[in-house]
Amino acid sequence: MDIGSLLERFAGGDRRALARLITLVENRTPEVPTIMRQLYPRIGRAVLVGLTGPPGAGKSTLGDKLIGAFRAQGKSVAVVAVDPSSPFSGGAVLGDRIRMQEHFLDPGVFIRSLSTRGRHGGLARATREVVHVLDAFGHDVVLVETVGVGQTELDIMALAHTTVVVLVPEAGDTIQVMKAGLLEIADVFVVNKADRDGARRLKNELEVMLHLRPPAAWHVPVLLTEAVANKGIDDLVDKIAAHGATRKAARTAESEASDRVHEWTEILRDELSLRLDRALAGGALSAITTKVATGSSDPYGAALEVFEERDRLLALLAGDGTRR
Amino acid sequence: MDIGSLLERFAGGDRRALARLITLVENRTPEVPTIMRQLYPRIGRAVLVGLTGPPGAGKSTLGDKLIGAFRAQGKSVAVVAVDPSSPFSGGAVLGDRIRMQEHFLDPGVFIRSLSTRGRHGGLARATREVVHVLDAFGHDVVLVETVGVGQTELDIMALAHTTVVVLVPEAGDTIQVMKAGLLEIADVFVVNKADRDGARRLKNELEVMLHLRPPAAWHVPVLLTEAVANKGIDDLVDKIAAHGATRKAARTAESEASDRVHEWTEILRDELSLRLDRALAGGALSAITTKVATGSSDPYGAALEVFEERDRLLALLAGDGTRR
Repeated sequence: MDIGSLLERFAGGDRRALARLITLVENRTPEVPTIMRQLYPRIGRAVLVGLTGPPGAGKSTLGDKLIGAFRAQGKSVAVVAVDPSSPFSGGAVLGDRIRMQEHFLDPGVFIRSLSTRGRHGGLARATREVVHVLDAFGHDVVLVETVGVGQTELDIMALAHTTVVVLVPEAGDTIQVMKAGLLEIADVFVVNKADRDGARRLKNELEVMLHLRPPAAWHVPVLLTEAVANKGIDDLVDKIAAHGATRKAARTAESEASDRVHEWTEILRDELSLRLDRALAGGALSAITTKVATGSSDPYGAALEVFEERDRLLALLAGDGTRR
Repeated sequence: MDIGSLLERFAGGDRRALARLITLVENRTPEVPTIMRQLYPRIGRAVLVGLTGPPGAGKSTLGDKLIGAFRAQGKSVAVVAVDPSSPFSGGAVLGDRIRMQEHFLDPGVFIRSLSTRGRHGGLARATREVVHVLDAFGHDVVLVETVGVGQTELDIMALAHTTVVVLVPEAGDTIQVMKAGLLEIADVFVVNKADRDGARRLKNELEVMLHLRPPAAWHVPVLLTEAVANKGIDDLVDKIAAHGATRKAARTAESEASDRVHEWTEILRDELSLRLDRALAGGALSAITTKVATGSSDPYGAALEVFEERDRLLALLAGDGTRR
């Protein structure tokens, strides 16, 4: 495949080239840094909105309605849905995505699911790069939806400009909200299915907890929505815009520099990890691997051995195909 | 600090030396591989039980009762509770741990919380090493409890011999169970708070889903418990033992070799990541860092630059303090 002509078609607005590039990024092909380097000048225009919360909170429906609201404003929208993947759960997740396809025929909406096949923190970086690609393509809004409330999901949300945390009245003790780390990442709270018992109580509890925090430029609002009935969506869209404006005003040259350095560090880390996998898959260190497999070396001693020999380390990390 | 005498006191059964070693491992000090290499011959005796499920399922209470049941069998128990950490949620998590301290005065029970301060997949490895340390100390059972249902938590559960997934009748559509990837990792399902409406229905639904899977040597049971009333705990302990026996019978030389190689690969990966952090914190690559910070290099181009220069790569990875 020719990356150059793919990038050319991408720059011309070809959605198939977009889909192809996303697949390359998701599969962590060795060309990713080269591709991303070329796209980099086009990145930074899109508004990045994160949508997360525990399973069953109605994130997909809310996401659907948000897409509709942004489209009504004339904005193009891309959705990245990060799902746990397994042969067994594939069906359920697919059902979700099919439901979202009410926007399938709208050329202003692009929907893509990402699976967790990339481990080792690789999923968070793959997601970031897919978001970069969608941004570079020219989407006005990129919506990132995660299922689950664990550490990887929190890492993924860190890349959003505005993170919307969706809860339902049955969410249980608000103490659980704190446990899940959601309180720290929320820029906007949504209590969805607000027609159910306990919605106002949960809203009040969240507001009390939020008031316990030190004052900040942005005061996290708690909104009531009924996504299935399209209620409260406009208010949510307004709050997302308001948070984006507050955030932009707070950006400094220092914070932007620090973000760039952080991203670079994560790229280095992920490259190290990918090169390790590729080198081992290619048969590097096969003698040590055999010693570990047979138990004649313990795994820790064998790891130290690799780091103590410079030639081994270099063979492992420097000799792959990213050099053009 | 003198690692040698610390390891000596550890070998003599000193709980303070144990706590100290765990802190070193949790803080990812450069000595970790050396420490683990020394402990390695003592590892492999303990039964590793994982306890996970969505927030609010009553995992802590169930864990408490499990500890009691294992203690009644004369077994020593260590608990590793993996919690999201933040200044804000610290209080809530601490409350949980205090509650678990009903076993505080029992010298046969050791309880330790691990926070998520180690990112980049580092938490899963830190947890694995803490479990190794507790195993090497001579605990009969190590119970690993995670809060949340995300990818990192699933990775952590992969180190358990037997994974117990705790749900409550309100868990909602069982489809959500699949989404969270819990169905794949459960060796035993527990429907806790079984006095509530819907417990039997959830049990039935889970059993139907489990029957859809291909037959295997171990048939995943779905148990009903009321942890607060200590109901169903003995049955759970029996099922954990039965699963352990089935698992042991299924182990082969090949599967053990593959596990050792996998662990070694993860150690290499984590060492690469830690050395990257230490080297950057120590001022390595400061010229490139400045170019990234000022925006005169894009993060991807700058990352490729590091990999294209062997000397830079070596300076980054080979020159730290693990050589004794």
